[in-house]
Amino acid sequence: MEIERPFDALSQSRGKRIVIEMKDKSQISGVLKAFDKHVNLLLENAEVRVDGKMKSKIGTVFIRGGTIVSVALE
Amino acid sequence: MEIERPFDALSQSRGKRIVIEMKDKSQISGVLKAFDKHVNLLLENAEVRVDGKMKSKIGTVFIRGGTIVSVALE
Amino acid sequence: MEIERPFDALSQSRGKRIVIEMKDKSQISGVLKAFDKHVNLLLENAEVRVDGKMKSKIGTVFIRGGTIVSVALE
Amino acid sequence: MEIERPFDALSQSRGKRIVIEMKDKSQISGVLKAFDKHVNLLLENAEVRVDGKMKSKIGTVFIRGGTIVSVALE
Amino acid sequence: MEIERPFDALSQSRGKRIVIEMKDKSQISGVLKAFDKHVNLLLENAEVRVDGKMKSKIGTVFIRGGTIVSVALE
Amino acid sequence: MEIERPFDALSQSRGKRIVIEMKDKSQISGVLKAFDKHVNLLLENAEVRVDGKMKSKIGTVFIRGGTIVSVALE
Amino acid sequence: MEIERPFDALSQSRGKRIVIEMKDKSQISGVLKAFDKHVNLLLENAEVRVDGKMKSKIGTVFIRGGTIVSVALE
Repeated sequence: MEIERPFDALSQSRGKRIVIEMKDKSQISGVLKAFDKHVNLLLENAEVRVDGKMKSKIGTVFIRGGTIVSVALE
Repeated sequence: MEIERPFDALSQSRGKRIVIEMKDKSQISGVLKAFDKHVNLLLENAEVRVDGKMKSKIGTVFIRGGTIVSVALE
Repeated sequence: MEIERPFDALSQSRGKRIVIEMKDKSQISGVLKAFDKHVNLLLENAEVRVDGKMKSKIGTVFIRGGTIVSVALE
Repeated sequence: MEIERPFDALSQSRGKRIVIEMKDKSQISGVLKAFDKHVNLLLENAEVRVDGKMKSKIGTVFIRGGTIVSVALE
Repeated sequence: MEIERPFDALSQSRGKRIVIEMKDKSQISGVLKAFDKHVNLLLENAEVRVDGKMKSKIGTVFIRGGTIVSVALE
Repeated sequence: MEIERPFDALSQSRGKRIVIEMKDKSQISGVLKAFDKHVNLLLENAEVRVDGKMKSKIGTVFIRGGTIVSVALE
Repeated sequence: MEIERPFDALSQSRGKRIVIEMKDKSQISGVLKAFDKHVNLLLENAEVRVDGKMKSKIGTVFIRGGTIVSVALE
């Protein structure tokens, strides 16, 4: 698939592990299950990291787009 | 039900306990009763936690989407 | 009435006392008179509390939705 | 007039003195002349107060809705 | 002209000196040349003041509405 | 050309040097090449200044409107 | 191609290295792969820099427009 828009890359990352940089400086990593145009994301097997150290396992999590800085893809 | 969009997962969590991470660093847990596309949520039997310690029981609460960071689902 | 959306619960709380958690950490309690889809609220017999202590009585007050964190209902 | 929406109360306050709580913690009081759906307000004979003390008289003032926390009505 | 909406007052202030209170606590005064519904303003002969002291003359300036707190009119 | 709206003045400044006041207190000066209704700006030969001192030359730069306070025109 | 709008310049920078100034004061450089009207950007071979020092290599990254200050183009 040709990448035309940034969301096309999220589309290709469904089912893969991604790392989200949050506005509060934490990172959330998990398997991308779903997203929408507001950059709301649904992750499975998610973990929160602060300063590179694991802080908690949160399982399935809905992340509101407005609190996301960036999403590192594989 | 197949999950297509992040909101589908909220839909499946109706009637279940969820934990909301708030922008002010508190957590609100409760039973998800209703939600809308702005991520406004209605919880029952809700409790506020700060640093993992229970701070107050607030019963039924309407939470404005714009103040939510993420929602951990079962 | 069945609750489908979070606003349905606000609708049921008309004429009842509610407690609003504000972004500035104060609480405003009062009798809910009216609301709209932006979560703008109109309260009567309203009081402002900070750290649980009453700060001032403000009577009838229009609260702009964008400054609200959550609304505890009866 | 029956109050259906919060803006109905602003409508009834035209020509009356109101007190606006601002995001920057100051208060602006004045006679409400006009408002719109963004909660932009026009006041006459307006005064700015900080910590309850009068800071300045600003006469006629246009206040942008996005900077308003709440509006106390008579 | 009857004032129905807050923008009507801006309309009447075209060509007159106004004083803008900015979110960053500075004031910008100048002659109002034009405005739009986002409260974007165009001023001529503008001056920036901080704590009541003149900081700089900036001539013609476009001010983005989202950074404005209030506008004092004559 | 008569100035009706603030954007008309940006239109007249195409090809001229402008100075942008940013929310982070820096200034970016450069030659205005293009703009849109969100106040997104494209500058050429741009320089960043902090406290009046040149910090870096950044050549051609796209500036997102939401981060702009004001734009001083010639 | 004539540049009419700021986004035209992003269009010309597809496949080229750009440097993004983020709201949190970090810089992200990378090869621009795609963008949309919200200034959401997709970069490849991206690196994060803080105070001019490389902090991490993040490969392919989706950057949410709302967290971007400016984009320096070649």
